[in-house]
Amino acid sequence: MAPVKKGILERLNAGEVVIGDGGFVFALEKRGYVKAGPWTPEAAVTHPEAVRQLHREFLRAGSNVMQTFTFYASDDKLENRGQNLRLTGVQINEAACDLAREVANEGDALVAGGVCQTPSYLSCKSEVEVKAVFKKQLEVFMKKNVDFMIAEYFEHVEEAEWAVHVMKTSGKPVAACMCIGPQGDMHGISPGECAVRLVKAGAQIVGVNCHFDPMTCVEAVRLMKEGVEKAGLKAHYMVQPLAYHTPDCNCQGFIDLPEFPFGLEPRILTRWDMHKYAREAYKVGIRFIGGCCGFEPYHIRAVAEELATERGIVPPGSEKHGMWGSGLEMHTKPWVRARARRDYWENLMPASGRPQCASMSTPEGWGVTKGHVDLLQHKEATSSQEMKHVLDMQKKAKSSA
Amino acid sequence: MAPVKKGILERLNAGEVVIGDGGFVFALEKRGYVKAGPWTPEAAVTHPEAVRQLHREFLRAGSNVMQTFTFYASDDKLENRGQNLRLTGVQINEAACDLAREVANEGDALVAGGVCQTPSYLSCKSEVEVKAVFKKQLEVFMKKNVDFMIAEYFEHVEEAEWAVHVMKTSGKPVAACMCIGPQGDMHGISPGECAVRLVKAGAQIVGVNCHFDPMTCVEAVRLMKEGVEKAGLKAHYMVQPLAYHTPDCNCQGFIDLPEFPFGLEPRILTRWDMHKYAREAYKVGIRFIGGCCGFEPYHIRAVAEELATERGIVPPGSEKHGMWGSGLEMHTKPWVRARARRDYWENLMPASGRPQCASMSTPEGWGVTKGHVDLLQHKEATSSQEMKHVLDMQKKAKSSA
Amino acid sequence: MAPVKKGILERLNAGEVVIGDGGFVFALEKRGYVKAGPWTPEAAVTHPEAVRQLHREFLRAGSNVMQTFTFYASDDKLENRGQNLRLTGVQINEAACDLAREVANEGDALVAGGVCQTPSYLSCKSEVEVKAVFKKQLEVFMKKNVDFMIAEYFEHVEEAEWAVHVMKTSGKPVAACMCIGPQGDMHGISPGECAVRLVKAGAQIVGVNCHFDPMTCVEAVRLMKEGVEKAGLKAHYMVQPLAYHTPDCNCQGFIDLPEFPFGLEPRILTRWDMHKYAREAYKVGIRFIGGCCGFEPYHIRAVAEELATERGIVPPGSEKHGMWGSGLEMHTKPWVRARARRDYWENLMPASGRPQCASMSTPEGWGVTKGHVDLLQHKEATSSQEMKHVLDMQKKAKSSA
Amino acid sequence: MAPVKKGILERLNAGEVVIGDGGFVFALEKRGYVKAGPWTPEAAVTHPEAVRQLHREFLRAGSNVMQTFTFYASDDKLENRGQNLRLTGVQINEAACDLAREVANEGDALVAGGVCQTPSYLSCKSEVEVKAVFKKQLEVFMKKNVDFMIAEYFEHVEEAEWAVHVMKTSGKPVAACMCIGPQGDMHGISPGECAVRLVKAGAQIVGVNCHFDPMTCVEAVRLMKEGVEKAGLKAHYMVQPLAYHTPDCNCQGFIDLPEFPFGLEPRILTRWDMHKYAREAYKVGIRFIGGCCGFEPYHIRAVAEELATERGIVPPGSEKHGMWGSGLEMHTKPWVRARARRDYWENLMPASGRPQCASMSTPEGWGVTKGHVDLLQHKEATSSQEMKHVLDMQKKAKSSA
Repeated sequence: MAPVKKGILERLNAGEVVIGDGGFVFALEKRGYVKAGPWTPEAAVTHPEAVRQLHREFLRAGSNVMQTFTFYASDDKLENRGQNLRLTGVQINEAACDLAREVANEGDALVAGGVCQTPSYLSCKSEVEVKAVFKKQLEVFMKKNVDFMIAEYFEHVEEAEWAVHVMKTSGKPVAACMCIGPQGDMHGISPGECAVRLVKAGAQIVGVNCHFDPMTCVEAVRLMKEGVEKAGLKAHYMVQPLAYHTPDCNCQGFIDLPEFPFGLEPRILTRWDMHKYAREAYKVGIRFIGGCCGFEPYHIRAVAEELATERGIVPPGSEKHGMWGSGLEMHTKPWVRARARRDYWENLMPASGRPQCASMSTPEGWGVTKGHVDLLQHKEATSSQEMKHVLDMQKKAKSSA
Repeated sequence: MAPVKKGILERLNAGEVVIGDGGFVFALEKRGYVKAGPWTPEAAVTHPEAVRQLHREFLRAGSNVMQTFTFYASDDKLENRGQNLRLTGVQINEAACDLAREVANEGDALVAGGVCQTPSYLSCKSEVEVKAVFKKQLEVFMKKNVDFMIAEYFEHVEEAEWAVHVMKTSGKPVAACMCIGPQGDMHGISPGECAVRLVKAGAQIVGVNCHFDPMTCVEAVRLMKEGVEKAGLKAHYMVQPLAYHTPDCNCQGFIDLPEFPFGLEPRILTRWDMHKYAREAYKVGIRFIGGCCGFEPYHIRAVAEELATERGIVPPGSEKHGMWGSGLEMHTKPWVRARARRDYWENLMPASGRPQCASMSTPEGWGVTKGHVDLLQHKEATSSQEMKHVLDMQKKAKSSA
Repeated sequence: MAPVKKGILERLNAGEVVIGDGGFVFALEKRGYVKAGPWTPEAAVTHPEAVRQLHREFLRAGSNVMQTFTFYASDDKLENRGQNLRLTGVQINEAACDLAREVANEGDALVAGGVCQTPSYLSCKSEVEVKAVFKKQLEVFMKKNVDFMIAEYFEHVEEAEWAVHVMKTSGKPVAACMCIGPQGDMHGISPGECAVRLVKAGAQIVGVNCHFDPMTCVEAVRLMKEGVEKAGLKAHYMVQPLAYHTPDCNCQGFIDLPEFPFGLEPRILTRWDMHKYAREAYKVGIRFIGGCCGFEPYHIRAVAEELATERGIVPPGSEKHGMWGSGLEMHTKPWVRARARRDYWENLMPASGRPQCASMSTPEGWGVTKGHVDLLQHKEATSSQEMKHVLDMQKKAKSSA
Repeated sequence: MAPVKKGILERLNAGEVVIGDGGFVFALEKRGYVKAGPWTPEAAVTHPEAVRQLHREFLRAGSNVMQTFTFYASDDKLENRGQNLRLTGVQINEAACDLAREVANEGDALVAGGVCQTPSYLSCKSEVEVKAVFKKQLEVFMKKNVDFMIAEYFEHVEEAEWAVHVMKTSGKPVAACMCIGPQGDMHGISPGECAVRLVKAGAQIVGVNCHFDPMTCVEAVRLMKEGVEKAGLKAHYMVQPLAYHTPDCNCQGFIDLPEFPFGLEPRILTRWDMHKYAREAYKVGIRFIGGCCGFEPYHIRAVAEELATERGIVPPGSEKHGMWGSGLEMHTKPWVRARARRDYWENLMPASGRPQCASMSTPEGWGVTKGHVDLLQHKEATSSQEMKHVLDMQKKAKSSA
């Protein structure tokens, strides 16, 4: 029998750094088990060995949290995307819980039940209806006795609050993440205000996941922390960003980049970029540090290696790495051996190998007039004029969704 | 019991396209099971589930060949790199054969026993000594009854010939690959001449793997084919390139790029780049088409999808893809749904998201005066003066290796 | 005898668009008559034909203002830079006035006497001392009867106010330009506040010149206009930006870019970039539109061509151009003839031809922690902490200047 | 009266380095006196002060050759481009000669009468007809007693030979330049063979001008020299390349780049690039070193400064420069003063300031399948198949010209 593990809040209250896992839908898409577009997790049932293996790799890389592979596994989403595998939401959610628990038991990791934004909300269903959707997933998490809850990937703080309300009924710790940048949610509500509302709704941990690159997400969480502290409240903070560089995206994040989702390769962060991310997140006061789309096991390992001193532990996977590329000391060529040192990799500016490609793209979608152009022109984020337009577009998008 | 499968030569003689697998050492390095620097495959024994899963993903992506995970698994290499896992070369090679066979049996794939260049040759051991190293690996392949042999990753054609000689004693089909570009091997022997020598040594399939990007490797194999045909010989052709764009590397390939091996991310090919590669390889007359370092399962799937018509089969993994991004038709945002079409992805020039990074690097190492500068200046490859210098450097490298 | 021309305020009050000239010190540096570093205008005396010719080219390009070539021609600057040509400030300023007047008389242009920031201010001399420096130049302008005054290139609004005070004593119209971006002057005073102070000091025209690219300067002037209007004041607006793309520079502008001043070539705006600039400036309500460092005659012509309809006039130099590249209709190659159209040039993204160069640099100097990093990270401009640091550095710079 | 100057051959025979001038049509286009498309030099008559000033700037920058501004001033070209200024070819050519002589007399420079390729040849007129065109220009050069002849900008060696034949009748020295790269002329005739034919036709100086960047042109002249020496002949060598980086252009040069002629700014060489060019040209044995399109006076000055030791002279214009940016020692900011040194500028990789632009373009025109793609793929230049296509296209172009 495994020894009783410290819970998520015990760890964070004690000032420990908790390492999250990476993004399952993107990693499994590349491995052949998730379909880009619907992005649903039926592979938890159909290909458990693939999902289990990915959990294991993140565990080995240093993750303390096995998040159930239940992204977009709400009943309304599964229906909406037309999955005709004759699998129920309950089957998928249960299988995902079992896999996460199985691997969590192999190391020092907790299981987090995950819910995310729903088509019901985007199509303007009522609070009761939307909450009913979350409740169905929560029932599985309670049955399977997950260790805590993560409500994540919300573009609208209102829906995130509703999710927190439902998750709180479990009596378990609740973390809540918006998929927003420093400009705030899709109605222009600032990160600070979003965080305050989530804390008031009952979340003990708040933060940001997906949609933006690590530094941008860290900045958004910093603004959340600032807001929470100004309001005289208390919380823990988490961040699980993309593993893609996205300096050019608008307020809706990488979805609007022309490269999404099949041409993002040149933007993938190196392990050394991850060191900088981990350090910055730590400095800002974030203690639950993980990843989302694009994060592969070696990215999480880099986070764990950067914070090895603070955590007092090196991840198991580092047996096959060595800090700062020290494994290269065994390479055949002398000039490659000379790269086995920290300053080499910290200062490297990797070339793209793509002479006909640019550094930045022009995002598509309704957000285009904002993010990118503003970014380059140092403009204030959004005049009220623009925001009105954004909300109009948003309504249209809702009604056509 | 599985039905008897067609052998590699039967397939190629019949004009079939055979899809290879991707690169194990790089993929497993990112997953946490291979150490960059030594690059040895002890995970075949220590973490079989990780190796098995990668085999399965390539099979699902469409691979017809499960290459044993025996790269750098010769006794001299294992010793040389100081692996102290108390594992013998025999144990590793046997475990690798078993894993490859297990997964091959799950689909339409053959098992290929793989050998590659040895430290013995680079440190100027005799032909007898070098051949003895290959023989030890061959004994395992014979005991485990692999379907055919691949001698690959040779920088010097002489060593490749020796490997072919040994492999030929098995009576099984033999494929041989150099890791060279159009400029030829490390002694300046042209691709055409290399190929002729390998065919004369007994290889039925010749080609190129690793070290250069797909288009460069295809060009090198085209030159091989030209050479073989001019010599009045016959052969089949294979190519297993990098999944990295390397327009800027010198004659020794991506090893000399400053980004090798931990900063190559911006160079990773998209799946659409892979379509172009597969088509070009096919046009040139290559019928054994796979990948090496950097190739992930989705890259192989893209090769299989591009050639689906020619092969009359779509890979199992395409159930989670749909040709040309058609899965995006189910995406929430209308502007992302609009990307579910071939011409969108074929014409996309992905940005790097890295405003401070360039398109090309300056390679390090002794090859630096050649490849890159020549490339930009349209110069003839190497004056005899330069070649002398290269050979001198080579000797020094040998003696210090 | 030339007919009496409408004055600058008559034109602006009537809603006319006034086209400024381009940057003399950079253009004449490339032609061999100004030394980078000191940047002083002794060529007005030593090589009048070169200065006259540049005036003529700008006139031909459409300029309505011949600014006297008196940049850095204050006595303290001329001394400070060690010019030992035995030329007095009076000689240089007088020669510059004569050249500007001579060419202005050849077309529809006014003469503007120009002063700019002084070493006296930067080395903390008193208001009286600084004003005495401006007064000496003004005496020449009065003797030579220039049409109006431009006080420009001020990093500190306080010094600009002093200059305006002095210029106002002439009774002639006064324009005042800061060399700042949207982040404000070197003490963090916002563009809006700077403009209000300059208008209160007596300037009828306020704006921005130099240091930043066109779009950034237009944005800074927009903020000036906003500030002036909020304060219930009235003014005309002008902008004379760089002809270099500078998305990556910090609050001190292009001076801090590593490429300043001898490696800026890849950043030079095309004529089509100038069309966009002119249109944007016009939209924002700016009616005095010109250029500074990097602007060549063809850049000014592009501004005049973009606003040809609004101004009801095409510049003389357009006889050698034709709108939107229409001259190409006479090119030999059919595919070049096909480029004789607006949408071709409007949409072209020109490549750099430099595979080893990046899109952005990291600025040097004390401003480095602000502009660039903030830009990429969407941060608010400056915390008070940072501003304190900036002011400290500024003091040090003053004392060491 | 000016002292008798050494002739061009005396200088080259004595081993002196002769500095050419820069490109007039591009420089004067930017100044407003030449129309892109027709590119004819009527400004010699209509705006002599502008042409004279540019001559003076090149002289000041160190040029030893004032080339008459007679590009495209043959009668057939002037007619063909529809110039309706009621100016005859004789008037334009005479005015150009007078301006060149006037300025040459102000320093140590010779006057070279220049002819270039004709529409008559491209539209398949006979040798007699084409030669008659050259003869008309030669008559002016003889009357005005230029010092030597330059026949330049020829895409076909046959026409260049005809030009040399005509020029030789003058009894004056003749230089001949093709506008080709290392791939040879438009019929695939190699640089070596072109050079041999030109020398046999009577040219004492052979080389390359326009169409390609400096390093590519130097390489083409190197191949010419190799060819001439292999043939046992003797000649002097000259090079006058573009001031644009063109790694991506096909065999027809920068004309086919999408940026030609109005979007080439990001490609402009810095003065430091010019140092490298001058050194490389000198090393290869070229002694007549100048520039063509894009070269501004400061580019020529950089060439003269790089070769100051070899020539024993610094150009007059260097009084406003100082070697390697030493003028910056007088700059206000300490970090800019720190740039007053050679290694800073030699190693700077200037950024483009254009985040949405790539490093390379895809050339248009019939040459597209060759240059660029080959370059990236290390392919041999042209199969006979491709050459057939090129010649067909060429014929079409001829008939439609």
